[in-house]
Amino acid sequence: MSDRLGRQLAFLAEADRLKTVLRANTLADGSRRENSGEHSWHVALYALILADQAGPDVRIDRVLRMLLIHDLVEIDCGDTPIHGSHDAASVAAAESTAADRIFRLLPEDQAADFRALWDEFEANQSPDAVFAKSIDRVQPVMQNLQSGGGTWKEFAVTSEQLDTRVGAKIARGAPGLWAHVRALTRSYFDRAAG
Amino acid sequence: MSDRLGRQLAFLAEADRLKTVLRANTLADGSRRENSGEHSWHVALYALILADQAGPDVRIDRVLRMLLIHDLVEIDCGDTPIHGSHDAASVAAAESTAADRIFRLLPEDQAADFRALWDEFEANQSPDAVFAKSIDRVQPVMQNLQSGGGTWKEFAVTSEQLDTRVGAKIARGAPGLWAHVRALTRSYFDRAAG
Ligand SMILES: [Ca+2]
Repeated sequence: MSDRLGRQLAFLAEADRLKTVLRANTLADGSRRENSGEHSWHVALYALILADQAGPDVRIDRVLRMLLIHDLVEIDCGDTPIHGSHDAASVAAAESTAADRIFRLLPEDQAADFRALWDEFEANQSPDAVFAKSIDRVQPVMQNLQSGGGTWKEFAVTSEQLDTRVGAKIARGAPGLWAHVRALTRSYFDRAAG
Repeated sequence: MSDRLGRQLAFLAEADRLKTVLRANTLADGSRRENSGEHSWHVALYALILADQAGPDVRIDRVLRMLLIHDLVEIDCGDTPIHGSHDAASVAAAESTAADRIFRLLPEDQAADFRALWDEFEANQSPDAVFAKSIDRVQPVMQNLQSGGGTWKEFAVTSEQLDTRVGAKIARGAPGLWAHVRALTRSYFDRAAG
């Protein structure tokens, strides 16, 4: 038991580093960039509060677990801004290598379980993963709306690009949520255009 | 539905402020103080990974939910360092007022549900709450061990004070975990004493 606990605590110590990985978007008040640790908490809270936006085949407790671990690979790879330019295949390869290293810090049974859960999230096919991805995508939209444009200004994103790159992914798992949020983003972009 | 979503999103926007509440302890690398948002993520991950330390009557998914919301009252009240001096009754009264304000941002049914969950955590009587409290107490111990003493140095805490103030609370919900961690803290305090 002591070796098992030792491995679990080593994994949890390594996880602490996610708090030093900075994302493109800021806090809602615009005061500083958000880190991936606090983002992971916020998206888990989003999933919990917005559970009634999920389809009937979504098990919200599995979604919470996915969201708690979904960004751990960023300890090795950093965050990949959705509006930046990057090679999706090389990012996926690097993140898979990171997942190998990080989840293998755990005892073997948990390493396998959590790696499978992360793979399911990345595959974005199961109802739980699709809803988790929708939630992971909508949170930075809300952060940008609250901070007055955020990364949309920085990357010169248009309303149409937002619909294509982000909105379609939110709508896939949470269509009612995106319908509501899209009215807010449309209004933002209309105002920004003057 | 739109008003319901509006209230849920207003609550989630307010929750963002927890990322600006600083705790006494630092990150594991000692680089800066930890905020209560990233702490909430880390303790939820602790509960998920250390679920096999809980008794058979603990429902870990309820523990995760408790831990995701347990510190929201700090948006109004700030963090109360366990090794600092404070009046427990006045802290409890202020936190209850904060819980009134913050959970009432939610739609009525969710406001009642999450307030009840927070009250259960605070009461520290149900098996789920007792385990959640143990996890909430053990994470800063590990942060202090990793950062070379942290708040124990700052507040001149002795090994015996740690056992009484913190260890007893960890042991209540997770005795095997505290037995393991206590060996680490004993070793730290022995080394610190030279
Ligand atoms: Ca993410």
